[in-house]
This record gives sequence, structure tokens and C-alpha cells, in this order.
Amino acid sequence: MGEPASLIIAASERDANLYYATRFWAPDAFIFLEIKGKKIMVMSDLELDRAKSEAKVDEIVSYSALEAEAKKINPNAVGVVAVCDTLLKQHGITTVRVPSNFPVALADDIRQKGYTLDVVRGPFVPDRSVKTPEEVSAIRQTQQHVEVAVQAAIDLIVSSEINGDELWLQGKPLTSEQVRQVIHLSLMDANCLAQDTIIAGGKQGCDPHCQGFGVLKPHDPIVLDVFPVSMDSRYFADMTRTVVKGKPSEMIQKMYQVVNEGQEIGIGMIKEGVNGRDVHQAILSHFEKEGFRTGQVNGRMSGFFHGTGHGIGLEIHEPPKVSTAPETLCAGQVVTVEPGLYYPEHGGVRLEDMVQVTKEGCNNLTTFEKTLIL
Amino acid sequence: MGEPASLIIAASERDANLYYATRFWAPDAFIFLEIKGKKIMVMSDLELDRAKSEAKVDEIVSYSALEAEAKKINPNAVGVVAVCDTLLKQHGITTVRVPSNFPVALADDIRQKGYTLDVVRGPFVPDRSVKTPEEVSAIRQTQQHVEVAVQAAIDLIVSSEINGDELWLQGKPLTSEQVRQVIHLSLMDANCLAQDTIIAGGKQGCDPHCQGFGVLKPHDPIVLDVFPVSMDSRYFADMTRTVVKGKPSEMIQKMYQVVNEGQEIGIGMIKEGVNGRDVHQAILSHFEKEGFRTGQVNGRMSGFFHGTGHGIGLEIHEPPKVSTAPETLCAGQVVTVEPGLYYPEHGGVRLEDMVQVTKEGCNNLTTFEKTLIL
Repeated sequence: MGEPASLIIAASERDANLYYATRFWAPDAFIFLEIKGKKIMVMSDLELDRAKSEAKVDEIVSYSALEAEAKKINPNAVGVVAVCDTLLKQHGITTVRVPSNFPVALADDIRQKGYTLDVVRGPFVPDRSVKTPEEVSAIRQTQQHVEVAVQAAIDLIVSSEINGDELWLQGKPLTSEQVRQVIHLSLMDANCLAQDTIIAGGKQGCDPHCQGFGVLKPHDPIVLDVFPVSMDSRYFADMTRTVVKGKPSEMIQKMYQVVNEGQEIGIGMIKEGVNGRDVHQAILSHFEKEGFRTGQVNGRMSGFFHGTGHGIGLEIHEPPKVSTAPETLCAGQVVTVEPGLYYPEHGGVRLEDMVQVTKEGCNNLTTFEKTLIL
Repeated sequence: MGEPASLIIAASERDANLYYATRFWAPDAFIFLEIKGKKIMVMSDLELDRAKSEAKVDEIVSYSALEAEAKKINPNAVGVVAVCDTLLKQHGITTVRVPSNFPVALADDIRQKGYTLDVVRGPFVPDRSVKTPEEVSAIRQTQQHVEVAVQAAIDLIVSSEINGDELWLQGKPLTSEQVRQVIHLSLMDANCLAQDTIIAGGKQGCDPHCQGFGVLKPHDPIVLDVFPVSMDSRYFADMTRTVVKGKPSEMIQKMYQVVNEGQEIGIGMIKEGVNGRDVHQAILSHFEKEGFRTGQVNGRMSGFFHGTGHGIGLEIHEPPKVSTAPETLCAGQVVTVEPGLYYPEHGGVRLEDMVQVTKEGCNNLTTFEKTLIL
């Protein structure tokens, strides 16, 4: 028997495991079967030729040919399950591994036909979290474009003027939307696609997923969190900086210093074999020790209430997590380290770098400086 | 009992049904439960406050509060299934509708706890294919940005010069990549995100999903297929034009004329109650009648070998299909009409408009002219 066959039915544009397995980018769902290391893809007429020239697999089978086979036995056999059934029968397979996100409707139909599904609860392709040199190079490349884009945004904020309680540029108020646009255009220029880029000033920055909107203010922290994907390599990068135009309050300066220290503690601890939970807990403890508590205040979360980091690669959030959940880090994994402190009466501060875990420690893939006051 | 409760567990950024139900854009999976029209969302601490201010639902429950509830009964009850179990028990629910793409691992775990899942095979929210006036307005808005972007691309091609068998611009060969970039930047300027934009010249255009690369050639058809999403409204638009700089062959001119006629036949037939298969078949028949056959030639697909169209909205491809599969059109649906002809020895020609189905016919949402020769 050996290892069981693995089955994915998905659109590779929306399923990183499938893209990882095939290196074929397709908008519509297709069947992928791996048997003892042999990779088979079933493609529609529309994608057949492109798949043959682009996909890194061993065999490409025509969907309509398999469907025609199925109909020979049962004239009513149409659709993806009939095609899948025919393919599995051809290879004498009765048990298949499927990923945890395999669609329940297909799972039910395939089980109905007598197959056993081995639903894999953890990562479907465990190797995926450990990055090859090529993958790290792709992440670094995307990160370089992030740094160029964030520099352009910071240049814009630097060149703004303080006009009462607003930042102005060229005779008009400077908005989060404008800064975001500068970043998006810079990234697009490098064929990188950014979504949900965060340019959140003042209180807006206290909500870690608020994208930010409206006029930016002097003396307030502005959180810039940028995480595009390269349309060339399909790999993401992710960086956050917090800046102030003007004079930040002592509280914000203290928060920045403590977040910076927290990040250094995290980066200092990360190495092969370390538990992500311990890294997260060490940062949280440092914050507590410095007087920055985490919890609900008047019905709102404040302090440090998100995870320290996440794996990154073909997905913006992928294993491993560096958070309250226990997870042992492996050499080769790339994770973010992004502590933050958020207090509605003061604003939000977050700093985020990407590092690759090594046997002895980690390599920081981020080279952008950390400066609070512009 | 009334209608059963509906359950989705997904990230709304990646699940259009969930975004449709909540109008809340989130990168990480959350639980959504609808009971007799009452919408409930379960949010992590990280998203709780933002959800309260942005989501269009009736009740927002704290994930950690529900997990604490679960632990009172069983100290080991952690994770999304325990939280879901607690929520369902609180509402006395034992049977839930789930969408066909519901993850099998969660489905198995929820069934394990004694719940019955009613897996919905068709559209989970059937209303979603019928667009409200606000939705049509959003699609039109994205489409306007598409037309501006495609005009910029065509202007670029018009301003190029024929230099031997290459198109040149400002002393350098003009490439698919450059034209694509002009479109992407124009769209980004309008806060629209384009991926996989097709600028495919000559033989490249024969593969309907080939994005196109390298130097563009004179006298060859160039397929421009542009389908961005607005980051403001989250609605897509989709348009294809085919152009030639120079003098196209008689074959290409004939193909263009016949595709244009095919599209007119399709648009002329579309109205409430019509079967999409009949529309597709009528176009295919017209092509056959004009001598353009569909099928494999020397192992490659040629002719018209993709569907006539697809629904569009929060997803680029959503129900209904206008293809070989039978599907009755309803008033209010928005579908593309995009016949094409592809012959490797000549090139590809495709024309695509978006129309909204009405009781009497359809409204074309595309206003961009169709001109083959630039």
C-alpha cells in the first residue's frame, strides 16, 4: 500500500496547498491526485493545453475523457464526483487523504461511493511551512517591494505640514486613503497586489484590523501595515511600522519603546525547537512588567490582544502560529513577529518584521528602519 | 421549527456568501449563524469591536466568552467546534444548513457531536444571483473603471509603431506585460484590484486562460480580458475586447465578425426564463454554420470550447452559468456573454459584455465599443 493517495479538489488560485503541489495557477476548481509521489491533474478542455505547458506534475488527464469513460458504465455519470470515481478506480484506490478544508458536499458524495476519506487535521503538506531557498528569495523580493512602498508613504507623511490638528499636503488635508494609494501604486508598479493595507491613525490604530480612513493627525501614532502578494512569485511579505508626524505623547513614546523591546525579546527567542507560545508569553510578560496590561476595559479590548506572529508564504496567514496556542518552531519556517499595544485613549503601536527560523536563532528578512518620530 | 438555521464558518474575504450575509470583511474564519432571519456572528477579541461597528447583523457574540462557557462544562472544550456547539445548544438547534464548501473536518466534528448537517448542494443564498439596484450600480461602477483602463491600454497600442514583426513604443518593443501594467495602474488608481489580466497576442490568445507575455506583434489579434474587483464595493466587473494593430488576416476578420454575431445572438436571446444552455447552443450552432468547428485538432482544443458566460458579483465566477449545463435565467441576474473562437494557426478572438437579465430581455452594462482594427 505505502502512503495513501492524496486528493484535492479546489481552484489553485484559492488553495495554497494545490498551488504548492502543482505550481499551476487556475481560477476554477480541478481534481488533483497524488499517488506515491506521482502527481496527476484532471483538467477541463479550457485548461488542458495551458496545464500541459505550465503545471509541475507527472500526468495531466482530460476531464471530458474521464467523464466519457464514466458514461460508458453509467450514462448518468456526470460531474466532478463521477470523474473522480473513475480516476480512483483506474488506480485501484479506496482510501484517500483529503485536507481539512475539503468541501463537505464532495466529501459526502465520495464517501457515498464507498471510499474512505482520511481527513488530515493539521497541515496537509507539512513541508510547506519550511521554506526552500527559492521560496525565501521570493519572500525577500516581495518584502523589498514593501519597503520601497512604505518608504514612499513615509516620505509623503514627512513632506506634510501640521495645520492645526490635521496633516496637510499641497494645500489639502492628507488622508489615510491617499497614503494607502501611494503604497498600492508603488506595489502595483512592482507587480505586487496589496489588499486591506492598514493606514490607521490615532484611535483607529487601536483596532488592529481597521484599515483607517479620513484625515491624518499630527502627534498621533499612524500604524502602517502592508502585506501584498507578488503576482510573479505568488509569495507574500508583511511589515508594520508606526510613525508620528509631530510630537508624540510620553505615553506613545513609552508604548513604542516597550513594543520595540517586546519585538526584540521575541526575535531573540525564536529558533528551532522553541515553542511559539513561550515567545508570545515572554512578550506579554514584558508588557505586563512595564505596566501595559491586556484585557477588556469598558467593554473594549486593550493591551496586546492578538498573536505575536504567523507563518507566511503562499498565504498571508499560514502555519505556524506564534500565539497562545502551543506550536514548536522548525528551522526554515518564516514567521512574522508583530507585537502591538492598543489603548483607545492613546492610540495603537505595532512593529512587525518577518524572520526565518534557523537552528541557532533566526534571520530577519526585514531591513526597514524603526523610527517613531518623522 | 420553521426554516432550519444556517451555519457558515469561513473568512468573509474568501467566502462571498458570508460577506453577502454580514457585509463584514475579515481575513480570518469566524462563525456565522442565521436563525429565522436573525443573524449572529461569533468574533475573536481581535475583531470584536470592528465587527460591532461594521457588520450588518443582529447580534455579535464574543468567541472567548463562548469558549469560557464551554469550558465550564468541559475544561478541555477549546476551539471552534466547542464554541459552535455551545452556541447551537444555547439556541436549541440540532439541525443546521451548511454550504457545499463547508470544510469537511468541521463538518465531521460537528456531526460527531450529534448535529445533523443539511448540506445545500445549489447556491446557499439563492437570492445572491439576483442583483439589487445597489449591487448593479456597484458592478457598473467597477465596469466604468474597467473601460477607462482598457481605453488606456488601447491608446498605448494605437500609439505604438510597426517595426518589422514587432510593435514598438518609444524606441522599445511593446510587451503584454507593459500593457497589463497600464491597465493595473489605471484600475489601482480607482481602488480596483486586477489579477490575471489577459493581454494575449497571436497564438497565446488561443489559450483562453493564458495571460500573455513578451513582445506584441502587428497584424495579430490581441485579446484583452480585464476583470477586477473594487476594493470599495467588493463587486467585480468583466470585459474582453480583441484588437489588431496593423492589418489582420481575412480569417481573423471573419472570426471577429462571427464572434460578434454570436455575441449578438446570445444577448438577443437572454431574458427571464430562458435556458442558458439554449443560448450557448445557439452561438455554437452559428459558429458551426459559418464553418467554425469546435473540437480537438492534433491534440489541441480549437473552436469555441468554453462556456458562453457566468454570473458575476461578489465573485468573478458565480451562478448562473450560461454553458452546456442547463440553467434557467432569472430577472435581475448579471451574466457575462463572452463567445470566442480559437485556432492555433490563426489566433484567438473573444468579445465579452456583461448584461443584466430582465423580464423582456437584458440590459447591457458594458458601453465600450467593439473595434477590431486600431
